[in-house]
Amino acid sequence: MNLIVLQKHDFISPNRVRLSGRQLEHITKVHRAAPGQQLRVGLLDGQIGSGEIVTLDEKCVELEVALAIDPPQPLPLTLILALPRPKMLKRVIQHLTALGVKKLVLINSYRVEKSYWQTPWLQEDKLFEQCLLGLEQAVDTQMPEILLRKRFKPFVEDELPSLSSDSRKLVAHPVGGTACPVDIKQPTTLAIGPEGGFISYEVEKLQEAGFQSVHLGPRILRVETALPVLISRLFPAF
Amino acid sequence: MNLIVLQKHDFISPNRVRLSGRQLEHITKVHRAAPGQQLRVGLLDGQIGSGEIVTLDEKCVELEVALAIDPPQPLPLTLILALPRPKMLKRVIQHLTALGVKKLVLINSYRVEKSYWQTPWLQEDKLFEQCLLGLEQAVDTQMPEILLRKRFKPFVEDELPSLSSDSRKLVAHPVGGTACPVDIKQPTTLAIGPEGGFISYEVEKLQEAGFQSVHLGPRILRVETALPVLISRLFPAF
Repeated sequence: MNLIVLQKHDFISPNRVRLSGRQLEHITKVHRAAPGQQLRVGLLDGQIGSGEIVTLDEKCVELEVALAIDPPQPLPLTLILALPRPKMLKRVIQHLTALGVKKLVLINSYRVEKSYWQTPWLQEDKLFEQCLLGLEQAVDTQMPEILLRKRFKPFVEDELPSLSSDSRKLVAHPVGGTACPVDIKQPTTLAIGPEGGFISYEVEKLQEAGFQSVHLGPRILRVETALPVLISRLFPAF
Repeated sequence: MNLIVLQKHDFISPNRVRLSGRQLEHITKVHRAAPGQQLRVGLLDGQIGSGEIVTLDEKCVELEVALAIDPPQPLPLTLILALPRPKMLKRVIQHLTALGVKKLVLINSYRVEKSYWQTPWLQEDKLFEQCLLGLEQAVDTQMPEILLRKRFKPFVEDELPSLSSDSRKLVAHPVGGTACPVDIKQPTTLAIGPEGGFISYEVEKLQEAGFQSVHLGPRILRVETALPVLISRLFPAF
């Protein structure tokens, strides 16, 4: 937890928050903090600054808060990702949030097992929790937006064109295509398939929607490795 | 398993291998292969090609092998990494191998807990196993070399200068320093600290050894996210 993320309901007066639970535990056990100490805090979807501990006991901590700095720049990226298996989903959401992805669409694909859509980790509060962990890690406050789209074809045909308009459109696919560009500095929509990749039909549908097929070279990477590699390659200086 | 990695002891004649265990299981259960079928194979530290199934039963499979293609290029990188916690170590070794790292030195650091060095996952056969999984994933055959160095100061003072000679020397450190360069196309030695980072003394020792401190911007990333991000940023086109 490199940032204590404050939510509106934490405020008990304009500049004072009261925290308990996981954040209190972190402040007492990891920071071993005492009244007077300054901690890095940020308001969810707002600015970052510092909070001075005013009172602290085993039930709650109160901080006097001053916010002054904007959060890091969001990536100019909309990520379209075939739903990963539940075990990987949590980690992927945290990593992507930490990397600065602000718009994520989890879609179905032929090689996504139907059962994956049943995982409780797709519930709104669970996704929020994983995103929060990513923001706390990366010292960011801007909550990503996550959309779930369980039907591939209607999504690609009806929704993707407006979602990806005015952006560069890429689909990561290990077979064929051109080498993934480097440092492109422009708004991008990037589609990434499941383990085993999109099937040909899906790549064709994406190509019909204007997506260019790009690869990462001869190595085949797991989705969780490919994601940071692709993001860093497209936007190395973010 | 995108590649079946053959070892010398698998060969029963110059062009024929006999496999059992995990590889047999993969061939029967995932490939659902039958005699006559071609599978992608590669010789450990050698070339990649194809293997045709000659015989197959519940105990073993025999393949007639033809090797023709060189494995992917290794990264021109020596990675000096503070020993991650055991839970993360396996994943990190697999990811780094899949990314093409061929030389990895796991070192001690002030913020590495002493107990981490006791994990059975540091045994030679266990490290080999994790590297093999990375090679199978990435369709590579070149086994990385992994060194363990339990004492920071003697390593940095006595061994690192020759290990890093004729290479660009970088230490990833979130505080101070300059932005990590992009697409540098030159042999590089990169040092990465533990969760929480190197302490100032350690950064200074590395700087004395010629290492330049570089950061990834305002976001603080977990080591397992920072590794692919750094590697992709330094060598996007590998």
